[in-house]
Amino acid sequence: MTPQDPDFSHVKAFVLDVDGVLTDGRLYCFNDGQQVRAFNIKDGYAIRNALNKGYLVAVITAKDEESVRMRLAQLGIQDVYVGAENKLHVLHHYLTTKVLDAKTVLYMGDDIPDREAMQVAGMSACPADAADDILLIASYRCFNNGGEGAVREVIEKVMKAQGNW
Amino acid sequence: MTPQDPDFSHVKAFVLDVDGVLTDGRLYCFNDGQQVRAFNIKDGYAIRNALNKGYLVAVITAKDEESVRMRLAQLGIQDVYVGAENKLHVLHHYLTTKVLDAKTVLYMGDDIPDREAMQVAGMSACPADAADDILLIASYRCFNNGGEGAVREVIEKVMKAQGNW
Amino acid sequence: MTPQDPDFSHVKAFVLDVDGVLTDGRLYCFNDGQQVRAFNIKDGYAIRNALNKGYLVAVITAKDEESVRMRLAQLGIQDVYVGAENKLHVLHHYLTTKVLDAKTVLYMGDDIPDREAMQVAGMSACPADAADDILLIASYRCFNNGGEGAVREVIEKVMKAQGNW
Amino acid sequence: MTPQDPDFSHVKAFVLDVDGVLTDGRLYCFNDGQQVRAFNIKDGYAIRNALNKGYLVAVITAKDEESVRMRLAQLGIQDVYVGAENKLHVLHHYLTTKVLDAKTVLYMGDDIPDREAMQVAGMSACPADAADDILLIASYRCFNNGGEGAVREVIEKVMKAQGNW
Repeated sequence: MTPQDPDFSHVKAFVLDVDGVLTDGRLYCFNDGQQVRAFNIKDGYAIRNALNKGYLVAVITAKDEESVRMRLAQLGIQDVYVGAENKLHVLHHYLTTKVLDAKTVLYMGDDIPDREAMQVAGMSACPADAADDILLIASYRCFNNGGEGAVREVIEKVMKAQGNW
Repeated sequence: MTPQDPDFSHVKAFVLDVDGVLTDGRLYCFNDGQQVRAFNIKDGYAIRNALNKGYLVAVITAKDEESVRMRLAQLGIQDVYVGAENKLHVLHHYLTTKVLDAKTVLYMGDDIPDREAMQVAGMSACPADAADDILLIASYRCFNNGGEGAVREVIEKVMKAQGNW
Repeated sequence: MTPQDPDFSHVKAFVLDVDGVLTDGRLYCFNDGQQVRAFNIKDGYAIRNALNKGYLVAVITAKDEESVRMRLAQLGIQDVYVGAENKLHVLHHYLTTKVLDAKTVLYMGDDIPDREAMQVAGMSACPADAADDILLIASYRCFNNGGEGAVREVIEKVMKAQGNW
Repeated sequence: MTPQDPDFSHVKAFVLDVDGVLTDGRLYCFNDGQQVRAFNIKDGYAIRNALNKGYLVAVITAKDEESVRMRLAQLGIQDVYVGAENKLHVLHHYLTTKVLDAKTVLYMGDDIPDREAMQVAGMSACPADAADDILLIASYRCFNNGGEGAVREVIEKVMKAQGNW
């Protein structure tokens, strides 16, 4: 933990947005309607490492695309909420289902649909290129952009702070 | 509105170019002739927000590709002009159809085919990586590049200046 | 022409490499063997403008992929040499066929297979991210990287120097 | 060899990771399950040059995707180890098979699964955007990122140091 880092010692669960957090926010649009996203291999390593060490990892996204589900399944993430119109409601549902205290949850988002959920979670983080309104409220601002290692940065920092990396 | 911003208070409609504005100008070329573009999720949020708050949003592009139409439809943009050889003519047609005063229109372009339309519109904006000839004439130069949040930046600034964001 | 620019006044023809010059050098590899490249819309505008004003534009590439031929055809480039194992030989053939003086040709490349041809042409240019051995010999080094406007930069500079832009 | 470079004079073989080294770590995820990667044309030139001059080049990757095999085959790399769960074991197997002294091997990786193999090899290198734990142990840190010329940089430096470029 460097001096400017917040206290990551209570985090037990990571809740992640997809577009702009696990990706750089680009949607590659094909004529068959498919929207392709680029996921980052280093984020993937961190997520697998966190799951292996007993952390919870969930994903909440407004979209629903088969490729996203497949990538998240490949990483071992079981708690995947797609088509989430209200992310705060989904977060509450997740907390209840897992009997989790919001204080132990770090929510990572990049834009206004994530804002309320970020304020309910005990901690929040955002990529360096998050929307201005999100940069203002996040407990931790990444040095890395979305899809370029922001998720890796947060998970690695939390796990190192807790001696689990 | 920061000190260096122009007066955005009259803008009621956004007219946007596609390549280099809503995208980073890359055309991913496939062997079946398909040209794939990457749209930006934060631009998308801003466009939806603008439409929800009653702003008009139109797109004028020289190209015509199914994937572009699908993405724009997904965002709720109904006024989409494809295959536009002369963007100024299309802009005039749009103003007439919508009974819009050019003073209330912000046109966002990045290259020479956009120049005349940018000069007719009441305001103009361009991405940070626009062509030199466009950087010289735009009322507002974005901090962000095309496809990396330039459209988001402009819409957010206008709506915040008007207290609608 | 800015003070540091070379004398572009003799250029009548542009000979361009593909990978790393018209693209950023990325090859997106698919399971069917297809290798997708991203071309830049602003480069495309400059090429069309040059052809319209009577400049010659040719492309020499070691590869041969249908998607590349289609993009170059879309831009109106008729002199396309694919599968070129020796670019210098192809350049000589091109000069002979078109009855062109090498002094009037600007060759743009980014790596060692382009070196000899760059030294034979009257002028040479390279993207900012060209290989070190190429940066050392180019008559003009772009501010822009390959696939990010380097070709546009060179063509625009030449045409502006000649009052044709 | 610049002053800060390590002694590259013993390197006879390059062992490379794929994701984050030969690519920028992005996995473009499609609905059919395909994960597309972008390889770099300048890395490719350097690999072909090294093979032509008698260097050994091997690739060890945890993944197994047809597109990766095809790209590596196109470059002439015959020693390709896919689905490698333990890269150190695979490296030992490679050394034994080729009767290679570990001192003559440069291993290039970017993340923790590469760490042990990097420590066994005589030299190690990593892209500028490697994981922090890897940046700390690499004999040579590239100026370039993975997929943006890091492999080219290392191979070119080694071959130039040995007068073979």
